[in-house]
Amino acid sequence: MISFSSMRFLLGPILMGLAVLMLAPCVVAIYYGSPDVTAFLLSEAATASAAVILMISGRGNVVHFRLRDMFFFTSCSWLLVCAFGALPFILSHTVENFTDAVFESVSAITTTGATVLTDLDSMPKDMLLWRSMMQWLGGLGIIALGTAVLPFLRIGGMRLFNTESSDLSEKALPSTRRILNRLLLVYVSISVACAISYSLAGMTVFDAINHAMTTVSTGGFSTHDSSIAYFDSGPIEIVAVVFMLLAAVPFMLYLPLMLGRRSGLLGDAQVHSMLAIYFSFATVLTIWLIITDQADAFSAVREATFNVISIGTTTGFVSTDYSAWSSFAALTFFFLTFVGGCSGSTSGGIKIFRFKIAAVMFNETMRRLLHPNAVFASSMQGRPLSDEVVASVMAFSLAFATIVCIAATLLAAAGNDVITSFSAAATTMANVGPGIGDVIGPTGNFASLTDQSKWVLCVTMLLGRLEIFTILLLLTPAFWRD
Amino acid sequence: MISFSSMRFLLGPILMGLAVLMLAPCVVAIYYGSPDVTAFLLSEAATASAAVILMISGRGNVVHFRLRDMFFFTSCSWLLVCAFGALPFILSHTVENFTDAVFESVSAITTTGATVLTDLDSMPKDMLLWRSMMQWLGGLGIIALGTAVLPFLRIGGMRLFNTESSDLSEKALPSTRRILNRLLLVYVSISVACAISYSLAGMTVFDAINHAMTTVSTGGFSTHDSSIAYFDSGPIEIVAVVFMLLAAVPFMLYLPLMLGRRSGLLGDAQVHSMLAIYFSFATVLTIWLIITDQADAFSAVREATFNVISIGTTTGFVSTDYSAWSSFAALTFFFLTFVGGCSGSTSGGIKIFRFKIAAVMFNETMRRLLHPNAVFASSMQGRPLSDEVVASVMAFSLAFATIVCIAATLLAAAGNDVITSFSAAATTMANVGPGIGDVIGPTGNFASLTDQSKWVLCVTMLLGRLEIFTILLLLTPAFWRD
Repeated sequence: MISFSSMRFLLGPILMGLAVLMLAPCVVAIYYGSPDVTAFLLSEAATASAAVILMISGRGNVVHFRLRDMFFFTSCSWLLVCAFGALPFILSHTVENFTDAVFESVSAITTTGATVLTDLDSMPKDMLLWRSMMQWLGGLGIIALGTAVLPFLRIGGMRLFNTESSDLSEKALPSTRRILNRLLLVYVSISVACAISYSLAGMTVFDAINHAMTTVSTGGFSTHDSSIAYFDSGPIEIVAVVFMLLAAVPFMLYLPLMLGRRSGLLGDAQVHSMLAIYFSFATVLTIWLIITDQADAFSAVREATFNVISIGTTTGFVSTDYSAWSSFAALTFFFLTFVGGCSGSTSGGIKIFRFKIAAVMFNETMRRLLHPNAVFASSMQGRPLSDEVVASVMAFSLAFATIVCIAATLLAAAGNDVITSFSAAATTMANVGPGIGDVIGPTGNFASLTDQSKWVLCVTMLLGRLEIFTILLLLTPAFWRD
Repeated sequence: MISFSSMRFLLGPILMGLAVLMLAPCVVAIYYGSPDVTAFLLSEAATASAAVILMISGRGNVVHFRLRDMFFFTSCSWLLVCAFGALPFILSHTVENFTDAVFESVSAITTTGATVLTDLDSMPKDMLLWRSMMQWLGGLGIIALGTAVLPFLRIGGMRLFNTESSDLSEKALPSTRRILNRLLLVYVSISVACAISYSLAGMTVFDAINHAMTTVSTGGFSTHDSSIAYFDSGPIEIVAVVFMLLAAVPFMLYLPLMLGRRSGLLGDAQVHSMLAIYFSFATVLTIWLIITDQADAFSAVREATFNVISIGTTTGFVSTDYSAWSSFAALTFFFLTFVGGCSGSTSGGIKIFRFKIAAVMFNETMRRLLHPNAVFASSMQGRPLSDEVVASVMAFSLAFATIVCIAATLLAAAGNDVITSFSAAATTMANVGPGIGDVIGPTGNFASLTDQSKWVLCVTMLLGRLEIFTILLLLTPAFWRD
């Protein structure tokens, strides 16, 4: 059975962390004399109280924390943060509807970046800050999860990358705690560098801080309805592109740099493949824009590159209405939605390493067809691919596809059109943000969807973010049997 | 190097077979005094001459027929039959356009059933018969290929089912030739039974013969523009459902019945899964039709069942405009397009056994998450799953998805809308026939697509039908190196 008491002991500090973060928008609200002060104070009080109650009630029970507890704890912590993170939206009447508040909170914490809010440009600064901070927190959470927890739990073939970094952890960074502290430092450093760069590129300090938080978390919330297009600035787009890419690589690869050692970053096969895939998509779309006379060469490169990297890294910033580039571009961006970034980064999607493993299998199969009697040992980056990893990649792909299909049909049953249904399911499952079509496309918004639709999307956002199996396992009877 | 001379020796008889089949519509044309007589006589002459030339030039060269020759031979034979099969369409001016003739021929031979022809109801009987006969021939070809050739070539994990039938081949049916002869007998018997049943259910003899040929080949061409809906007959739909299902199971399972032994048909796991999947889709759609007040219970069951089995088995008959059942139904049918029937049958799609293998990996992964130290031996139907089979299923899935995505974007680039592009790519790759949307939906037609689009679809139909790798391998430099 799950040890609920040790659960409580660990969930308490997480909620307390959320309460501490809530102080920031609270202070901003007070400074600007915003009407949201009461809402933030109440949310603060509620979150802190819940944290204290959890910690007290679970005191002295940290002893037996087993595998199953980890699954339960991971799902619980995400759900709790989503629930308490929604409080400011409800209490401030920023949204009038419980569903909308939860949707916005889940979209933030899962770093999806789909929004039901409009008129962001005239929204109180504290609320904008809160949205960005939740994405930043969600990004931090997923790095910790993807680096320390999921490989340990063997979720989705990620163990492959655990072994890869094992030389690091055995020699210089003995404990998980130390690794996590260093990752936090890396994450904060990159965020600060991003904010400074945005500021130098012409953003106000407030915009720079907000966009830095939603860039490094590949979340994609903006402080403006028109997203990055609001600035119409080449330098700002360049900063965004650089930091979206930095956020989409495995954060473990930054650790050697901190110790003054050479990082495997530039030699990493997953990073290479990611760049190659984005480059291919961007090139195809650039050529398309040029041959269809929709843009001169310079604008074509700029717009194709920015939006491909934004969708590819699952950030979801938008610099132009790319769905107006015809059905060719819409479909290309739809397929790009599934790709995602690297494992151990803040980005979502199916992720590059899974495509790489499938590609290894493809090459092996092709060679075996010509040389049926030869023996092949599957390997990737010089290491053998275990049956377990291959099986889990196949399992993940089947689960991902099945859930997208089920969610899409549920959305269609709730009255959405074919394109909106399919692309909403895909973009939330991959934690991207914008979809295609008139409703939720790059210039669209999730506000007009029905409540049922939004609940479906909350589920897909969480499933996608927690690599499906973390949650799916909790729903099996075997999990609850002893 | 490929031994082109032995190639020619084997391709000759195949073309001769086609020429012999062409006699049938020729006789029908003469009997009805159709204007197509000259076209058929010319096609006949051209095909027979080509066959004779191939046979003479390749005489006496059957000795060394190696693995690579098999791949080349398979692709070549399909392409040749498509090319010569198109002659009657061009020479009779049934279509005015070379592209349309090739499209119709490829769609027939690959048993896809997408058509560019309209006004079928007033078309000369000989031409209708020719279309149906080509589908029937394509169905026979794919049974032979899927049973005797592909498992030998280890394409797409089909070897799994080769081993399964090995007890059969070792004991009672020693040679491949004998198996193929028996399969031909089974195919002819089922076709005759189907024609008689259609006739008893109320079709004219001509319609019964045509629909029998396009049912057992899961092709789906009809002699009427409105397909099976033309008859509006419960008994006819029941006959169609039964024979579509019989055509979607592995034909090898019929062989023991011929020898008076018990067949594994009813106990076959792949057949069970297929029925379970179709039943689920049909149930969901039945409930949808009832709760949305679109049909009474009886019509709901009838319409949902018929169309689900028609799309699921990749036949593509249409008994009603199911796309009018809302976006929910459209998406459901779109996803069903990918499923397909069993291996070694006439149906296309991704095929049930690949989903089953992915499901085995899924279950294994779920169990491993809870019991990380346990050792699992993947098995299916009591036999161990080899790494090779798992790898080839993953390779096939990656190739299938990638080709659908590329084809869909090419179709969009050719000016088609998002839904038409995506669903045309999927429905041709899976050899189904109808897609969704206004253009190529259940009541639509492929005639209005541009020539470029039709050529893209010819490629996807052939790739889908030949399990991708047969053709893909010919495009690699390694294949042509010695």
